[in-house]
Amino acid sequence: MSAADGGVAILAGGGALPRELADRLAVRGRAVRILALRGFADRGTLRRAECAFDIVDALGIIRRLHAWRPAAVVLVGVVHRPTPRALLGAVAAAYRNRDFLLPIMRAGDDRLLRTVVGLFEREGFTVEGIATLAPELLAGVGVFGRVEPTAASRAAIGLGVRCLTALSPFDVGQAAVVAGSRIAAVEGPEGTDAMIARAQRLGRTSRLHGGEGGPVLVKMAKAGQDLRVDLPAIGPDTVRRAARAGFSGIAVGAGATLVIDRATTIEEADRRGLFVVGVDTAQDVPGEMSE
Amino acid sequence: MSAADGGVAILAGGGALPRELADRLAVRGRAVRILALRGFADRGTLRRAECAFDIVDALGIIRRLHAWRPAAVVLVGVVHRPTPRALLGAVAAAYRNRDFLLPIMRAGDDRLLRTVVGLFEREGFTVEGIATLAPELLAGVGVFGRVEPTAASRAAIGLGVRCLTALSPFDVGQAAVVAGSRIAAVEGPEGTDAMIARAQRLGRTSRLHGGEGGPVLVKMAKAGQDLRVDLPAIGPDTVRRAARAGFSGIAVGAGATLVIDRATTIEEADRRGLFVVGVDTAQDVPGEMSE
Repeated sequence: MSAADGGVAILAGGGALPRELADRLAVRGRAVRILALRGFADRGTLRRAECAFDIVDALGIIRRLHAWRPAAVVLVGVVHRPTPRALLGAVAAAYRNRDFLLPIMRAGDDRLLRTVVGLFEREGFTVEGIATLAPELLAGVGVFGRVEPTAASRAAIGLGVRCLTALSPFDVGQAAVVAGSRIAAVEGPEGTDAMIARAQRLGRTSRLHGGEGGPVLVKMAKAGQDLRVDLPAIGPDTVRRAARAGFSGIAVGAGATLVIDRATTIEEADRRGLFVVGVDTAQDVPGEMSE
Repeated sequence: MSAADGGVAILAGGGALPRELADRLAVRGRAVRILALRGFADRGTLRRAECAFDIVDALGIIRRLHAWRPAAVVLVGVVHRPTPRALLGAVAAAYRNRDFLLPIMRAGDDRLLRTVVGLFEREGFTVEGIATLAPELLAGVGVFGRVEPTAASRAAIGLGVRCLTALSPFDVGQAAVVAGSRIAAVEGPEGTDAMIARAQRLGRTSRLHGGEGGPVLVKMAKAGQDLRVDLPAIGPDTVRRAARAGFSGIAVGAGATLVIDRATTIEEADRRGLFVVGVDTAQDVPGEMSE
């Protein structure tokens, strides 16, 4: 059995994505086992999981993986670093797992995921991502819904892509808001939602002249971002927030952005009059985008 | 009389800077007249002003300047775009001045100052800035107070300078916060104070691992920024905010950043244990800075 058709262990955090991925893998005929992370995985995921582990229980997870020897391990869904309280609540387990936990607790946010991936790889596992396991879950190039970006919006998208590309080596935002011909916000560690709220406040205090149609959210991966575990994502909630903030639409990097719950995302965008578009970020200016 | 020693008309907004500049020009033996902007210039400036104008009264300002014909016009101090309410409050004057006001009201924030400069230049005046009139008010290269940046802080400053340099063509922030080896925030139109507050919140929710000593504020001009009317600035209040946010210090671009009330700024920094340093932003990495 080659690695490509071997079993896949899904280490599952929050949200519907772990189940979506399990479904896509099942279609491909691959053996899948879900290892749910307690406190993060939701009910639907827990129901389909083979077992559930406390996030502190690295040893337990690794033992289970060694027993199965999957061809690939994939980490998907929302997970946070264990809080000090969670560590105290499971202090015996934390002590038992200290060799795994210490590097994780010490790593900055930017190195956190790399540290976790490193742990699995040192144990001999292959960590894969959605891009190789189920690329159809990622945004492609083109307009997703019924709303087309205007020429002005396309220009704003181009500006956002160029700005994020220039910023890429600095491990800062994977998203920006462009209002007319101006960058209104660059995302930092606060995340996309907080940045949208910030742009909204700017718009309210009219420090932002949006051009017709409202600002555009541009989201794409940074250079060197480990897409196996850290994939830019948008979903129905992103569309709702962007609509409430008066945005005209959302552009994402094609081939490297996850569209969570794609049907609902497009439905919401259509209903609220926002465009959602996947752009080839390697091209300098997406002045003309293929549909 | 050459332009260099001719009269200087100071169009004065808020803060102490218009008076500081008038003092420096007086030391140089230049004739100075302060034209105060009503509603912006503070009491001390109004007392020394030759006359005061409503900001809407562009015609009045220009007529007065034509009567005097100064060698240079300089715009200093805090001024905002007229609010719709201010325009309605002076609707007759606004109508009289519509040819001047319309381009100003239509220009985005980024083009606002360029538009104002253009108006004066079209009337035949030479608009100058502090860099040519009183360069001693700008930050030089070196450590200003008693606190020296650590090697880690110098590395953080270098990262901030490189990031802002990369962002420079995009007319976005003229400041960033660097925490350890990570860009924690890039300033948008919300301004430096709001960005410091944002970085502070990130630190509180521990999404930010600052490295020893706390984050560093880096502030410098963008490429193509019109330094005659749009000079990055720090002052005592910047130091206080940075200290409250747990920052270790502030780095500014030498030769292109205004240090408002320099004595108090340094005094505050010394008392709160923050460094304030001017760096040559043209050098790639200020790993070693001359004192």
